[in-house]
Amino acid sequence: MYHHIKKLMYTVKVGTPDPRFGNMLLEQFGGANGELAAAMQYSIQGLNCEDPGRKDLLMDIGTEELSHLEVVGALIRMHLKPMKNDRDAAEADPLVAVAGGGGVTLCNSVGSAWTADYLKVTGDLAVDLHSNIAAEARAKIVYERLIAFTDDVETKEALQFLMTREITHMRAFSAALDSMQKPRFAIGIIKPTPGLVDQFFNASTGEGQDGSKDYVGPWNQEDGLNLIDSEMTGGTGLHVAPYRPQPGTEDASAVDSTPVGVDTGDAGDRKKSSKREVA
Amino acid sequence: MYHHIKKLMYTVKVGTPDPRFGNMLLEQFGGANGELAAAMQYSIQGLNCEDPGRKDLLMDIGTEELSHLEVVGALIRMHLKPMKNDRDAAEADPLVAVAGGGGVTLCNSVGSAWTADYLKVTGDLAVDLHSNIAAEARAKIVYERLIAFTDDVETKEALQFLMTREITHMRAFSAALDSMQKPRFAIGIIKPTPGLVDQFFNASTGEGQDGSKDYVGPWNQEDGLNLIDSEMTGGTGLHVAPYRPQPGTEDASAVDSTPVGVDTGDAGDRKKSSKREVA
Amino acid sequence: MYHHIKKLMYTVKVGTPDPRFGNMLLEQFGGANGELAAAMQYSIQGLNCEDPGRKDLLMDIGTEELSHLEVVGALIRMHLKPMKNDRDAAEADPLVAVAGGGGVTLCNSVGSAWTADYLKVTGDLAVDLHSNIAAEARAKIVYERLIAFTDDVETKEALQFLMTREITHMRAFSAALDSMQKPRFAIGIIKPTPGLVDQFFNASTGEGQDGSKDYVGPWNQEDGLNLIDSEMTGGTGLHVAPYRPQPGTEDASAVDSTPVGVDTGDAGDRKKSSKREVA
Amino acid sequence: MYHHIKKLMYTVKVGTPDPRFGNMLLEQFGGANGELAAAMQYSIQGLNCEDPGRKDLLMDIGTEELSHLEVVGALIRMHLKPMKNDRDAAEADPLVAVAGGGGVTLCNSVGSAWTADYLKVTGDLAVDLHSNIAAEARAKIVYERLIAFTDDVETKEALQFLMTREITHMRAFSAALDSMQKPRFAIGIIKPTPGLVDQFFNASTGEGQDGSKDYVGPWNQEDGLNLIDSEMTGGTGLHVAPYRPQPGTEDASAVDSTPVGVDTGDAGDRKKSSKREVA
Amino acid sequence: MYHHIKKLMYTVKVGTPDPRFGNMLLEQFGGANGELAAAMQYSIQGLNCEDPGRKDLLMDIGTEELSHLEVVGALIRMHLKPMKNDRDAAEADPLVAVAGGGGVTLCNSVGSAWTADYLKVTGDLAVDLHSNIAAEARAKIVYERLIAFTDDVETKEALQFLMTREITHMRAFSAALDSMQKPRFAIGIIKPTPGLVDQFFNASTGEGQDGSKDYVGPWNQEDGLNLIDSEMTGGTGLHVAPYRPQPGTEDASAVDSTPVGVDTGDAGDRKKSSKREVA
Amino acid sequence: MYHHIKKLMYTVKVGTPDPRFGNMLLEQFGGANGELAAAMQYSIQGLNCEDPGRKDLLMDIGTEELSHLEVVGALIRMHLKPMKNDRDAAEADPLVAVAGGGGVTLCNSVGSAWTADYLKVTGDLAVDLHSNIAAEARAKIVYERLIAFTDDVETKEALQFLMTREITHMRAFSAALDSMQKPRFAIGIIKPTPGLVDQFFNASTGEGQDGSKDYVGPWNQEDGLNLIDSEMTGGTGLHVAPYRPQPGTEDASAVDSTPVGVDTGDAGDRKKSSKREVA
Repeated sequence: MYHHIKKLMYTVKVGTPDPRFGNMLLEQFGGANGELAAAMQYSIQGLNCEDPGRKDLLMDIGTEELSHLEVVGALIRMHLKPMKNDRDAAEADPLVAVAGGGGVTLCNSVGSAWTADYLKVTGDLAVDLHSNIAAEARAKIVYERLIAFTDDVETKEALQFLMTREITHMRAFSAALDSMQKPRFAIGIIKPTPGLVDQFFNASTGEGQDGSKDYVGPWNQEDGLNLIDSEMTGGTGLHVAPYRPQPGTEDASAVDSTPVGVDTGDAGDRKKSSKREVA
Repeated sequence: MYHHIKKLMYTVKVGTPDPRFGNMLLEQFGGANGELAAAMQYSIQGLNCEDPGRKDLLMDIGTEELSHLEVVGALIRMHLKPMKNDRDAAEADPLVAVAGGGGVTLCNSVGSAWTADYLKVTGDLAVDLHSNIAAEARAKIVYERLIAFTDDVETKEALQFLMTREITHMRAFSAALDSMQKPRFAIGIIKPTPGLVDQFFNASTGEGQDGSKDYVGPWNQEDGLNLIDSEMTGGTGLHVAPYRPQPGTEDASAVDSTPVGVDTGDAGDRKKSSKREVA
Repeated sequence: MYHHIKKLMYTVKVGTPDPRFGNMLLEQFGGANGELAAAMQYSIQGLNCEDPGRKDLLMDIGTEELSHLEVVGALIRMHLKPMKNDRDAAEADPLVAVAGGGGVTLCNSVGSAWTADYLKVTGDLAVDLHSNIAAEARAKIVYERLIAFTDDVETKEALQFLMTREITHMRAFSAALDSMQKPRFAIGIIKPTPGLVDQFFNASTGEGQDGSKDYVGPWNQEDGLNLIDSEMTGGTGLHVAPYRPQPGTEDASAVDSTPVGVDTGDAGDRKKSSKREVA
Repeated sequence: MYHHIKKLMYTVKVGTPDPRFGNMLLEQFGGANGELAAAMQYSIQGLNCEDPGRKDLLMDIGTEELSHLEVVGALIRMHLKPMKNDRDAAEADPLVAVAGGGGVTLCNSVGSAWTADYLKVTGDLAVDLHSNIAAEARAKIVYERLIAFTDDVETKEALQFLMTREITHMRAFSAALDSMQKPRFAIGIIKPTPGLVDQFFNASTGEGQDGSKDYVGPWNQEDGLNLIDSEMTGGTGLHVAPYRPQPGTEDASAVDSTPVGVDTGDAGDRKKSSKREVA
Repeated sequence: MYHHIKKLMYTVKVGTPDPRFGNMLLEQFGGANGELAAAMQYSIQGLNCEDPGRKDLLMDIGTEELSHLEVVGALIRMHLKPMKNDRDAAEADPLVAVAGGGGVTLCNSVGSAWTADYLKVTGDLAVDLHSNIAAEARAKIVYERLIAFTDDVETKEALQFLMTREITHMRAFSAALDSMQKPRFAIGIIKPTPGLVDQFFNASTGEGQDGSKDYVGPWNQEDGLNLIDSEMTGGTGLHVAPYRPQPGTEDASAVDSTPVGVDTGDAGDRKKSSKREVA
Repeated sequence: MYHHIKKLMYTVKVGTPDPRFGNMLLEQFGGANGELAAAMQYSIQGLNCEDPGRKDLLMDIGTEELSHLEVVGALIRMHLKPMKNDRDAAEADPLVAVAGGGGVTLCNSVGSAWTADYLKVTGDLAVDLHSNIAAEARAKIVYERLIAFTDDVETKEALQFLMTREITHMRAFSAALDSMQKPRFAIGIIKPTPGLVDQFFNASTGEGQDGSKDYVGPWNQEDGLNLIDSEMTGGTGLHVAPYRPQPGTEDASAVDSTPVGVDTGDAGDRKKSSKREVA
């Protein structure tokens, strides 16, 4: 159950309304990495979550993002106000001005309607936490860019508040993932094929017009990875020997979500009987 | 420049075509976490990348995903074949049967057209690597579920091949991010507000019908985080003291992307002059 | 600011999970007339509303709809559960089963992602209240149909609860519109062209295969309306004499939203100086 | 069957083409509340309508809206013409200029493609009439705003013509709904739960930064409604006593659409045998 | 101006309603190649067309497609009827059953909402005629597949009527394009680069698992085309010598649309002064 | 299997970056007629194609379009660069600037995300070739307009290169269709109804404000077509005598795709036994 308190989580003020900047800000209201996307992603993950501790985390942050939606909406509304009666401002976003009456609307900065296609919800807790860490990183960088495009001090301060919260959430999601005590690259319940999983495939070769060329780095020659060239460029290609996947071979955590699939039952049961760590 | 070799990266075979399973497989062809989404996300990031080493990585993996698109497409096509002349099979996906002629099509498992709204491309290298790690985790879990829903051995093996590659890529993207030598939660060029960044906000409280209640865990009381209750539940609420954001305060890597914004110039310059690590 | 209480507004139980019915229920979670659509439509209207009394109304109902989203989500989750490991159930919605892990997702009953294109937000208070009355009527009829398609008693009861609330909201929005004391067809600030506004145009004529023919009814011959035949069928056609629109000619309410447009200023001022009715 | 007469329903002229205003006008061609949305909503409702009188009404207005689509399209085309060879004009809408050749296109004012997600078609006549009344109100306010953003006299006159028709249609749909002689809040065939239906839930409380606070008004304390506070704020919360829904308990009209659902048969029959009012 | 006559262009009857087939038929109502797509594509092209003869053609066919939309809609409605009270039928398309009340709706066979993204409208008459020829070919093949998936004789006959009209239209559009007397591959006003335009690039090579290999055919070695191998496979690659495009070098027809662009004026004038052929 | 070579197919240079023009160019990157649309349309058709010769053609061109995507993407990136730190440039496309970091993104010129709804893939080879011919014509005209809107010589040259390739492809697809040796209007396997197929229906009549009137031309009175007036305007209307469709009556080619449908078996067999022409 939700309750709304009329007080904003952060009191917004605007020196000089800047409708074109208000338009940019819509990115964080109805955009792909904006507050509604965050609120919905975490809250729906939370609704589906089987681990009560991390479900609490998801609901905590999902709800806070709703409060952020309201804060950034109030800020945008102040910046958009001139669209009500200034034809030049209205041209910056005719959808807002003509169809939306100059108010905030559930679109991004170019007027595309918000869509749930932005969300990443798989119903696997560890995977969803990975998605959330990345989502927070994206939201942080977008706020930072918005701060750089305005001169209004109070607007900058409000955005700094919102931006900071994304890092807090990134840390919380990371801690929740760490505390599941899964090996770093253990996803789900089936182990990847040995050997093949260590092969980095060199699918792009040659030298480009901007000086780009083939590079060797930790991502293709360290951490157990090794570089394999394509048959196309004289290499051996990837190992394609058939390997029969076995559910339950991957290291699972006691708080992992129940696996999906008709023949995973045993793997799921085994996981559920593991010793429960402190939430 | 791209070149296509008629040989598939992995030779697919199908024992008994299963059109309803073919439909499920479309999730990895034209779905949100499927191979085209992966190919496009990494390739477009690569096109925009300013660091030549990691650009090479992005193009390598982006191109490999195109080859996977072809593999999974060939597999799906074998499973969908009965839709050509079996009315019952056709009912499983009339869009494929009637509009698509029983062939593979750029839709997900419920016939929604692929959209670039699935992609996460911010133009910030570190953030994009975070997004890619999460994307690979999602692709892995979806392959695993598909494996569990089919009995066809050769289909399972093909999916195991594709699934394994996602873990390889997850490791490569993680290594690339690690090698940027940025502090774990350093995103962009502006430091979050001190104090506020440590406050975990307890926005969801009480006890639920399914036994859920308020939990304490590493995500709200460890790693420097502390739990703050809302004014609504008698707490102090978050610190909202204004804080003036300063570009250039966050720890940056020499291979970070150029920051965005009119007043970030100095921060960007400073970053670019740092000592370059081995790619 | 929002707060979440772990207790559901209505405690849901399910006798026998029915995954295909769970799929139908998604219509009220992520569908065009579902709870998120209602929550977002009213909350965003509320964020933009200039009249504090009716803003409170919009926030009250917008927030209650968020609680409904949670209730219907919990109900759906119980019905979808068999999708986790029953291949037949999974076929009913492969997007939910394979991509979503068998949990609730922000889609409608055929897997189309929720979109803000469902929302009707114009920033004109009276118009928005009209849209909300219609939205509640739609939500009511959809709940009623869902009740008719399930035999599970507790599911029926939960849907009856949710359905009832739509009628409550329909009454509240109607009362709020009535209390604005605007003439029934007064929208905005420009009067429609006299004469022309009374002409009902008979654009569809003849007799159809199913016995349909031209009808006369209150909608084309009463309430001041009169039936005009097209030039195509020998009639006079509509009056097209030019008429110069004048902002401020329509009857406005003191609590109407500020009108939009460069040359409406005077009309807006006049409205704002009217005597304020009791909220 | 449709027939097209080359003459426009209203002859449009333009003094000075204004491509940025032409862009705004696209809102009424390919926008959410525009003429195609109206034409399709009413025509498809008409196609499904079982009451021949109101079906005639729906086809009359649906067809007239097609004629309006053509009128507003002709007007837009005149305003967009400079996009053909003026780079500055082309920047106002590159989609129109570069992809569309400077002509009118089925998009809204920010270039989003028209989508049937805009439509509200439930197949229940009374509900659909509610949706149509609201749709006409929205179309009226959008035309009014467009009138305010142009100085071109003949453009204003054309928009006044189109705007007036929306009010005519709003009156006709209202008369058609009234003539169904249903109680004001009777939707479908199941009565809402007594008691619960009278409870207005106070889900948003407190005082906001802009002086907003809790209000009492006709929408929460009159017309049989009473204000209930949440458990969260010390109130009793809503009545959640189970109530078993009974199809056929709500007051129906003889011209209502056949109800939907496996166990509504009886209710539907009863309705169909009621005395038929004059259409 | 449009007029609607209640009589259908083709009287539809249905022996045994088949709701799952009704669902398939939606492909031609609200699908990508369906009747609304055709009606809108041609009518909007017609609205923008500068050549009065072919504008008449576009309006003739665009209007006929609207009549087809009504015919196919009436047919679908008869097939969908069981969705009203048969739970099994309702499962075939819950969106139609639950949200749409069992009536026809502006979606395709998998419930995706119709979108103007389906349309191909460039504002260049010759190009648009090419698009229309292809659109009619697509609509024909879809009707043919639908005929093959039903046993109902009267349904087959109705679809045969509609299918036949697509071929009529394909012939008419082809005749209109031929009568423009443009060279077969002359598009617009700029000639392609000589030499380069004759080079067919061999970007896919090798031998595939299904016996595919490199082929030579009229498409890469006849009609003036010659096969060029990529540098990747030891070939010369394409000619990339710079060539300065000159507007007005391509052969244009007197009835071509006005070209688009700031520096095309002269080319456009020359074209307009050519001798006008008989419409 | 795909391979990427770091060298661009055409080396791009830009004199003066022009971010608003870069925005226009996005139409050919992530737009409806752009390079990704072409690459995906042909490659997916190729994946489904049963004729090995024309499959090779589809893969050749599909792959070349991927290389074009990269070329146009590199060009756009150079033009967009000022969006990184110039607020005015950023206003031209806030989605690119704020969310995308000033890089190229999979959107069109107004920021709408790329969607597979742009694609035309029917799985019928002849029909798909028709669609491809039209697609190339559209891509050509869009490039030509872009050339006209820039003054930058090297940008013009790059676009001329890309534009030329579209004509090459249009020729190749046309040759491939011609070489199937099908009668010009033979689509699929069912003949259209004789008599009816020759009737051009005059659904738009009268005289318009811009001098338009009824025209006679080759499209309605030649090539075997004859003009039929509607019953509405005193004509006879179309022939609607029932005609029973027979699969296998249309002239098919030996390389046609297998027909779709339960009762087409015989027709398909007959086709497959025809003498195979030289690929």
